[in-house]
Amino acid sequence: MTRVGWIGLGAMGGPMAAVASAEHELLVFDLAVGAVERLTDRGVAAASSIAAAASGVGILAIMVATEAQVDAVLFGEGGAAPELEPGATVVVMATVGPAAVERWEARLAERGVALVDAPVSGGVARAGLGDLLIMVSGAPAAVAAVGPLLATLARSAPVVGDRAGDGQRVKLVNQLLCGVHIAAAAEALAFAESLGLDPRATWQTVRSGAAASFMLDDRGGRMLDAEFEPPLSAIDIFVKDMGLVQDAAAASGLSTPVAGAARGLYARAAAAGLGRKDDSVLIDVIRSEK
Amino acid sequence: MTRVGWIGLGAMGGPMAAVASAEHELLVFDLAVGAVERLTDRGVAAASSIAAAASGVGILAIMVATEAQVDAVLFGEGGAAPELEPGATVVVMATVGPAAVERWEARLAERGVALVDAPVSGGVARAGLGDLLIMVSGAPAAVAAVGPLLATLARSAPVVGDRAGDGQRVKLVNQLLCGVHIAAAAEALAFAESLGLDPRATWQTVRSGAAASFMLDDRGGRMLDAEFEPPLSAIDIFVKDMGLVQDAAAASGLSTPVAGAARGLYARAAAAGLGRKDDSVLIDVIRSEK
Repeated sequence: MTRVGWIGLGAMGGPMAAVASAEHELLVFDLAVGAVERLTDRGVAAASSIAAAASGVGILAIMVATEAQVDAVLFGEGGAAPELEPGATVVVMATVGPAAVERWEARLAERGVALVDAPVSGGVARAGLGDLLIMVSGAPAAVAAVGPLLATLARSAPVVGDRAGDGQRVKLVNQLLCGVHIAAAAEALAFAESLGLDPRATWQTVRSGAAASFMLDDRGGRMLDAEFEPPLSAIDIFVKDMGLVQDAAAASGLSTPVAGAARGLYARAAAAGLGRKDDSVLIDVIRSEK
Repeated sequence: MTRVGWIGLGAMGGPMAAVASAEHELLVFDLAVGAVERLTDRGVAAASSIAAAASGVGILAIMVATEAQVDAVLFGEGGAAPELEPGATVVVMATVGPAAVERWEARLAERGVALVDAPVSGGVARAGLGDLLIMVSGAPAAVAAVGPLLATLARSAPVVGDRAGDGQRVKLVNQLLCGVHIAAAAEALAFAESLGLDPRATWQTVRSGAAASFMLDDRGGRMLDAEFEPPLSAIDIFVKDMGLVQDAAAASGLSTPVAGAARGLYARAAAAGLGRKDDSVLIDVIRSEK
């Protein structure tokens, strides 16, 4: 069995690693000791450093939040890249945009290491059930090498392209929709309140019809229950992702005004100090501007 | 059995009247002769005028497009109101905003005629299957009087309030979501194209995950097939409805920037001469601004 180094045990990475460990031999690392202990308590092996997690493994899975964090994991001081053996495959599951994964793919190729671009969607609950959607791209041999790992994590892991970057591109399309749908749910429920309607009854009425969305179902209830902590997905995630969406759209000359307006709401939430709260807190941003 | 006068046999009203006629005694009227003939060919009785459709009926159902049209049907020259008998119930199924139905309710009450506010959602295909969502409000006796008719038309007809206006309010919340979701689908699929992705494969990948919406499913396919005629729901409908949403939000002091950005896209589509095209043509508006 291929040994898998795993870096990143946060809100998504933690439950994903737990699911993966049931079928794969993992060697995990995270800067947060508590997050590591939750895995070692289940009998999963822990590495003492990023370099140790990368040493001698066939696959290195990276599930951290930002481009800068992946950069540090791979190429920072004490990073993974010098430890990886030729023939190993790095699978990047963070959402960082296509330019970053293309750059890392080129740098790793110099060492004979492949990169698979595999950002995920589905949220914390589905992460813990091995029920994610993973958007996979990369060279066919590398994609095949990580297939069994991704199959453990995902309900569906379509290969969307044969070059690193296409996974990120599809993920950005996904995030445009998700980010707008959450914002629409926030506006709609705040609107219901402002019209003097019972917002919960209104939500129940509209969510099963033409207004239905996964996000209206999923975030609508948290908005109405004011369940903003702990965050299942933080405002900061969509500040980052809607920024990546707008950057990629602008780079291709496309104007996306609805996504832009949604991005503005996430930015306002972060500016109000709500960046670490659940993104369903967006309803408070709409309410507060009344 | 209560005789039902029915005014309005357009894209929605035509199939709805056909469904209703299977279980209720209808007397239909529309200015478009062809639309009337499609019903009379099925053995449904037609009236020679609005006044004749209202004369002696227990229920008058109105399914036209705009506030001005309902005003003309009820109170214009040769209109329905003078013909309605005390105890009759008018059921308004158009989306016109709460202020209009409240005004009509008051004027009809002077004649002993009740009004039920019952805007519908679901689109043409579901209209023809008696599978709509109808958001019902009004005095309980009046709502009870039209219950059997609405049950024939709807999969679900929740009573959302005991005053006319609340049905419209819930419908506006519904339309905010629908209008934004269609715009998000247009931006997302145009974005996929601009990133060099296969837009249909991308659509298939994201539509089943956290990005899922009824509108992404329903309009996404039409966007990719460029099926903009005949319109199943025209751009002009959302020009009107997003205007009603923004007016009602502004009247309650609420700022809804994402809905506002979507409204701007529908307005640009109408300004480009696309008002009578299917609302999935919004993808061309996004593409054209590249």
